[in-house]
Amino acid sequence: MEKRYLMTPGPTPVPPQVLAAEAEPMVHHRGPDFQTTYTSVLERLKQVHRTANPVLLFAASGTGAMDSAVSNLTRAGEKAAVVVAGSFGERWTKICAHYDLEVERIDYTWGEVPNPAEIGAAVAASGAKYLFCTQSETSTGVVVDVQAIKAAAGDAIVVVDAISSLGAVPLEVDAWGIDVTVSGSQKALMCPPGLATATAADHVWEQLPAKSRTFYFDWRATKKAQESFDAAFTPAVSLIRGMDVALGMILDAGLDEGLAKHVRLGRAARAGVKAMGLELFSPDDDTSAVVTAVRCPEGVDGSALLRHLRDRHGVTLAPGQGALKGKIVRIGHIGWFDIFDIATALSALELSLTELGATVERGVAATAAFDAYEQTVTA
Amino acid sequence: MEKRYLMTPGPTPVPPQVLAAEAEPMVHHRGPDFQTTYTSVLERLKQVHRTANPVLLFAASGTGAMDSAVSNLTRAGEKAAVVVAGSFGERWTKICAHYDLEVERIDYTWGEVPNPAEIGAAVAASGAKYLFCTQSETSTGVVVDVQAIKAAAGDAIVVVDAISSLGAVPLEVDAWGIDVTVSGSQKALMCPPGLATATAADHVWEQLPAKSRTFYFDWRATKKAQESFDAAFTPAVSLIRGMDVALGMILDAGLDEGLAKHVRLGRAARAGVKAMGLELFSPDDDTSAVVTAVRCPEGVDGSALLRHLRDRHGVTLAPGQGALKGKIVRIGHIGWFDIFDIATALSALELSLTELGATVERGVAATAAFDAYEQTVTA
Repeated sequence: MEKRYLMTPGPTPVPPQVLAAEAEPMVHHRGPDFQTTYTSVLERLKQVHRTANPVLLFAASGTGAMDSAVSNLTRAGEKAAVVVAGSFGERWTKICAHYDLEVERIDYTWGEVPNPAEIGAAVAASGAKYLFCTQSETSTGVVVDVQAIKAAAGDAIVVVDAISSLGAVPLEVDAWGIDVTVSGSQKALMCPPGLATATAADHVWEQLPAKSRTFYFDWRATKKAQESFDAAFTPAVSLIRGMDVALGMILDAGLDEGLAKHVRLGRAARAGVKAMGLELFSPDDDTSAVVTAVRCPEGVDGSALLRHLRDRHGVTLAPGQGALKGKIVRIGHIGWFDIFDIATALSALELSLTELGATVERGVAATAAFDAYEQTVTA
Repeated sequence: MEKRYLMTPGPTPVPPQVLAAEAEPMVHHRGPDFQTTYTSVLERLKQVHRTANPVLLFAASGTGAMDSAVSNLTRAGEKAAVVVAGSFGERWTKICAHYDLEVERIDYTWGEVPNPAEIGAAVAASGAKYLFCTQSETSTGVVVDVQAIKAAAGDAIVVVDAISSLGAVPLEVDAWGIDVTVSGSQKALMCPPGLATATAADHVWEQLPAKSRTFYFDWRATKKAQESFDAAFTPAVSLIRGMDVALGMILDAGLDEGLAKHVRLGRAARAGVKAMGLELFSPDDDTSAVVTAVRCPEGVDGSALLRHLRDRHGVTLAPGQGALKGKIVRIGHIGWFDIFDIATALSALELSLTELGATVERGVAATAAFDAYEQTVTA
């Protein structure tokens, strides 16, 4: 009977309109109704990526799209530089190592903001053919400047994991010349998990190895099938119908307006956290629009805090990952979130910390959040 | 406003209870609610497969599970025999060739029923390490005797594509000693497409190559994650919740009772087709419980017939594939089908053929179907 609040950076809440579309009676994937939906989703994905190139759509978790990038682009023995500043950077290293690349790590302490000029220098020094990076490192709340990274990376093929950033922070795939972008459905795109995407620039297509290293994620076969508005294999019909509704909502409201909303939600979350007297772990600036990571106050264990939030108040926040487990909690605010959700998350955090015996400033967080939210975002 | 009838062998109709579960508000994949569902699905999948071994669950089309079998089991250069009697046998050859196996085809004319003794002899003669086969070749309606194939295959590791057969025709993974079984959600399991499964016998696990050739479909990593009731990557939460409901329905009604129902639906479809004066393409026996393939009468083009069925009567049947396109139509009857659906499919076929100028026996198909359905199935 208790109301539940999902406030994690993925899966994220799914709008009721999207859920309703997922529950529509099944249709055949080669019939005219679904082909209309499929065509629409493929077109809308291009708009959300701001690319004229095809966006390949896979039935898979976001990691499937990451796999597809490594397994389609690379040959064993090639050198790949990877920006590692959290758990999703680590995932790139694992995938690259799995496919027998020589991995050159560009390491940052978790929470530190990777520096594009340093990254460019490291890529040049290593002679890496590829640079893999994570636009929004959801394990820390850090968003990197992928436009600057691409500009600094010389001739390296820059592959961006935009899984938790697409639709939440600016990403101009064509204008910035991003070579390869992968993403997933269950973050700012407001869909359930199970769909993954990949898009590549023309020059990348021209230099692809003759054969993908996986069968299922073969980019050429997928592209060819999509060009006839078909899928290489039975597509995830219900998820794609939901995605069409979600992308329609995002584009109808305006992609730029949505990005500005995310900036304001991030501001609101940070203002509330600070007003409560808590310390931020994620950066205290407007780039941090995906997830707000909060250090647990002295004497409060993050895991106990999350259990309390969930069991006592029905609010699910995300834990710290790796060495940060128990030390931080993370408030996700991508996709189907508004300012009242932020106020709810902050209020629940305030109540829970008090109930667990921590000293926090009471009664100010939500007001601080509303005040911060009202500031207009200027480009 | 017109009612629609999906009567293809995949995707198949999804029960409203399952659709409703798909539309429930999103939850976090590491929270207690979802862990209960996930544990339940993994256990129920074992029951449906009749295996004590873990069933690995992937966010993917069924082809993803086929890929996982080849990419986890095999090393480049090994020899694989493949039973090819339709388009899904062809798919095995493509995947095996993609992963640089030496493919030994065991070819049958589409529609012919593969012979286990012949297959066993061909495997022995070739010295193949693996035998890939398709339990239900949905392109033709032929179901092969995988128990006999396994018994005839000597030491070869037998890999069964049970995508369209699991839950529709008998499959005793452990009792028959099937080495590897792959399946998918969108057939007799009554779920939307987007989930794929793989299960392997103990001795297969013991001789796996040190490394999967794909990262995403890595069996060891998936098994390890599932052992702690977790997924390797963000699981397809909504599809899995739907699958829990669907598997619960199947098991509550009784797996054997469900298999008997499929036999009776197949009998009913065939009786109706023959009563109308049409010729069957799929075998006229009780093994043919997945899809009934019907030859188009002289002068009727299958593609035109399917369009008429769909546009005039709202009924979607499946086309012939490959060289059979235009020559046959296929009535799927796996999963969420009952005898009234068969009567509807037959009646729509009867009406449409008449409207297209063909001569068919009128007014007898549905009655013949009901009569055939009433015969009890004895094991």
